[in-house]
Amino acid sequence: MKFTNPFFKKRKNISLKEIIKILNIKVENIKKKILISDIKNLDQAFKNDITFFHSSKYKDLLNITKSNFIITNSKLSHLLPKSKTKLVVKNVLVSVAKITEFFYPNSLNDQFENNFIKIDSKKIYKNVKFGLNVLIGENVKIGKNTSIGHNSIIESNVIIGNNCIIGSNVIIKKTLVGNNVSILDGAIIGKKGFGFFPTKNKNIRYPHIGMVIIGNNVEIGCNNTIDRGSLSNTIIGSNSFLDNQVHIAHNVKIGNNCIITGQVGFAGSSNIGNNVLIGGQAGISGHLNIGNNVKIAGGSGVIKDIPDNKKVMGYPAKDIKKFILESKKYE
Amino acid sequence: MKFTNPFFKKRKNISLKEIIKILNIKVENIKKKILISDIKNLDQAFKNDITFFHSSKYKDLLNITKSNFIITNSKLSHLLPKSKTKLVVKNVLVSVAKITEFFYPNSLNDQFENNFIKIDSKKIYKNVKFGLNVLIGENVKIGKNTSIGHNSIIESNVIIGNNCIIGSNVIIKKTLVGNNVSILDGAIIGKKGFGFFPTKNKNIRYPHIGMVIIGNNVEIGCNNTIDRGSLSNTIIGSNSFLDNQVHIAHNVKIGNNCIITGQVGFAGSSNIGNNVLIGGQAGISGHLNIGNNVKIAGGSGVIKDIPDNKKVMGYPAKDIKKFILESKKYE
Amino acid sequence: MKFTNPFFKKRKNISLKEIIKILNIKVENIKKKILISDIKNLDQAFKNDITFFHSSKYKDLLNITKSNFIITNSKLSHLLPKSKTKLVVKNVLVSVAKITEFFYPNSLNDQFENNFIKIDSKKIYKNVKFGLNVLIGENVKIGKNTSIGHNSIIESNVIIGNNCIIGSNVIIKKTLVGNNVSILDGAIIGKKGFGFFPTKNKNIRYPHIGMVIIGNNVEIGCNNTIDRGSLSNTIIGSNSFLDNQVHIAHNVKIGNNCIITGQVGFAGSSNIGNNVLIGGQAGISGHLNIGNNVKIAGGSGVIKDIPDNKKVMGYPAKDIKKFILESKKYE
Repeated sequence: MKFTNPFFKKRKNISLKEIIKILNIKVENIKKKILISDIKNLDQAFKNDITFFHSSKYKDLLNITKSNFIITNSKLSHLLPKSKTKLVVKNVLVSVAKITEFFYPNSLNDQFENNFIKIDSKKIYKNVKFGLNVLIGENVKIGKNTSIGHNSIIESNVIIGNNCIIGSNVIIKKTLVGNNVSILDGAIIGKKGFGFFPTKNKNIRYPHIGMVIIGNNVEIGCNNTIDRGSLSNTIIGSNSFLDNQVHIAHNVKIGNNCIITGQVGFAGSSNIGNNVLIGGQAGISGHLNIGNNVKIAGGSGVIKDIPDNKKVMGYPAKDIKKFILESKKYE
Repeated sequence: MKFTNPFFKKRKNISLKEIIKILNIKVENIKKKILISDIKNLDQAFKNDITFFHSSKYKDLLNITKSNFIITNSKLSHLLPKSKTKLVVKNVLVSVAKITEFFYPNSLNDQFENNFIKIDSKKIYKNVKFGLNVLIGENVKIGKNTSIGHNSIIESNVIIGNNCIIGSNVIIKKTLVGNNVSILDGAIIGKKGFGFFPTKNKNIRYPHIGMVIIGNNVEIGCNNTIDRGSLSNTIIGSNSFLDNQVHIAHNVKIGNNCIITGQVGFAGSSNIGNNVLIGGQAGISGHLNIGNNVKIAGGSGVIKDIPDNKKVMGYPAKDIKKFILESKKYE
Repeated sequence: MKFTNPFFKKRKNISLKEIIKILNIKVENIKKKILISDIKNLDQAFKNDITFFHSSKYKDLLNITKSNFIITNSKLSHLLPKSKTKLVVKNVLVSVAKITEFFYPNSLNDQFENNFIKIDSKKIYKNVKFGLNVLIGENVKIGKNTSIGHNSIIESNVIIGNNCIIGSNVIIKKTLVGNNVSILDGAIIGKKGFGFFPTKNKNIRYPHIGMVIIGNNVEIGCNNTIDRGSLSNTIIGSNSFLDNQVHIAHNVKIGNNCIITGQVGFAGSSNIGNNVLIGGQAGISGHLNIGNNVKIAGGSGVIKDIPDNKKVMGYPAKDIKKFILESKKYE
């Protein structure tokens, strides 16, 4: 099923010819009249989407991708199936950023919105309770019995479910919120991720066209920062609770029934299983897979994948029994 | 002396019969007409209060408690003096949550308040300086020469002393603030703690009927989050200074003359002595006792009690000399 | 070139006689009619400024300082060149605080400002886009094509360059901002540093007369806290990007092209080189020199200087290869 991103306007079909021109490359023997409909990750792309392959880590996905048009570099291009059209560039991710921006022309603009509707609780938002000085963007949907605290800003197209409690001084953009969710004071949800290409004089920002998806019965603590995804989404699973001052970077996926205590931080693109418990101030590096039922002790620094049901502690985090044993040795 | 909680309305005397019904247990040979006036911790309960015993760690308190009615479980019930009425349940803390909520029916509601008074500095708040867009709840008391910055929200019944400087974008609820206190921009004080019973589909929130008590001459840094207590209070002692982005969980007690630097985090229910110095980003686990004059190096992770006058460093934190010696071994 | 601090009014020339009286000391054989124009660090003081020497760590600066009037203590005074006038006090830094406050009488007042101008974008701020409920102090300069988000507060005399994006709920005071700078939602920039002299009953706050200087093409993340300098300034170099929840204490100088990821914290007065990359949750102690092109792994605790081009990891941070080797030993 194709899902339409409600937050970013996408240009309609772009010809492969135009894409090749933007990439500033030469490609032989292809039908330039082909129309490309979107840019997606390998596993999510459809037949007429363009995709990319920038690390051999993802080579298994080459076998399952439906896309026929793959941006890659000269080192990796031999790994591509012959049936695919190779678009060989110098820097894959910079090229992806360019094409993404071309498909989604507003994706780099992160200025505040300035079009707010007049809240008339009798008509549009029946059974919603608003604090003072609340700003609600266009096309925002808010379920019944939900309350939005003072000075909070809900930007356009955000969807919030029933029975939610949104605190004061909260900012929500590019986000879908389930039912029975509490988002506490000062949380900032849905801003673009910290993704860019460093260059000497002016870093190139990566477009972030993903959103934040929050399940049901979730609690998001005070002053949390949850960034939206770049190409994929940032997800907080149902019944997961986050304490104060937690930071979640772009593309992180947190499972159901997780407990994330104060000041925990996640670098980008990690997948966290269900029923995971993470102690205060622990840090989770980027691009990791943390299994189900994992327990991570407070203050730990996780830099490797963790299989299901493990308890870890330390920096770098290891089996908790080993860690405690070693610590005792030096007491 | 009995102290009336100014923030939560309490039901008047509830019959023991009713409590037994809520707990869904059978108790033989007791006078069910007895009236219970409150629920308290072992050491703070009076004769007609109900209390609870959920861990053998607290068995010494059984000898001093004045309460005659103790919720416990079948494993621990043999430790109770014969003179006490035992209320044996499956899960002690879930039962305590139920009874607390019954005594304090509004204790689980953490929605923003919506009744604010019109600030007329000439009449109610003489000598108080208000910024723009300030919201002041009902029955708030503010001392002379105190200032409240722009967009700040002070909820009902909060008491703030003389000569205080409250910054902008600050939120204060369920809190008593002494004299000469600075609360800097963006701090959020008094929201309910991160306490709940995890279950698969919908976590059960624990009622937080404690408050935050801040002494005199205290400084609370920018974007700090200080949660109120569950049954007891969260306390910041006089002349203690907290830097930016500090997180203090429910029931933590910090002594006088402490210095807590940036990004330090406290899990719940620890007691910190006087004259304690804690370096940046250190973390203090829950339910610990940290003595007087203790120094904790930046970045340390404290997971055990620390006696008076010790200097510690490391994760887990240990004597600082040992830590440095070991570190040198591996240089 | 003499630079006039735009944020703090300075008293004009103060006689040496008056300074000696404030310090409550006796100095023989000096011309008390001499007028002192300011108080500065050793390396920044001019001939008629007063300066101070409180640690032998800075003895090399005694040879280059232009100042003739040096506050020091009895242990260090023998290191001063004979040509200089020695002002020997018990506690050098407390004395410096007193003199600083005397020169800059408003430097200890950190209450919110209350004089805001009426924004009339057609006249004063052409081509500036303002959100709702924005407060702009007196004499603020804002460049063209800059936007200021909702509920943000820009205090008096702040200068913001062209093409900047200032988010919502942002507070900026005592700060100079370059061109093409993004300051994201909830950031608090320019409040006084966490500097004071601890005493038993009431800590003495240190005056902070420095500012924050932000270069061009910088990004400051959500909920960051960046404190202004005490005597010198806090500086964020051009093209440096800071992720969410970063804390930067007073006097820190960050070079150009640095990448500082989420929840990193800097204690006061460290100098960070150019092209430095710091992983999430790392902490940098005070008064350190971190070289150019240094890479600091996430979660590290840096407590020593780091030379150019080094990669470090661990707590305390050491060469990354050594750290990984040791970690493997205990797996």
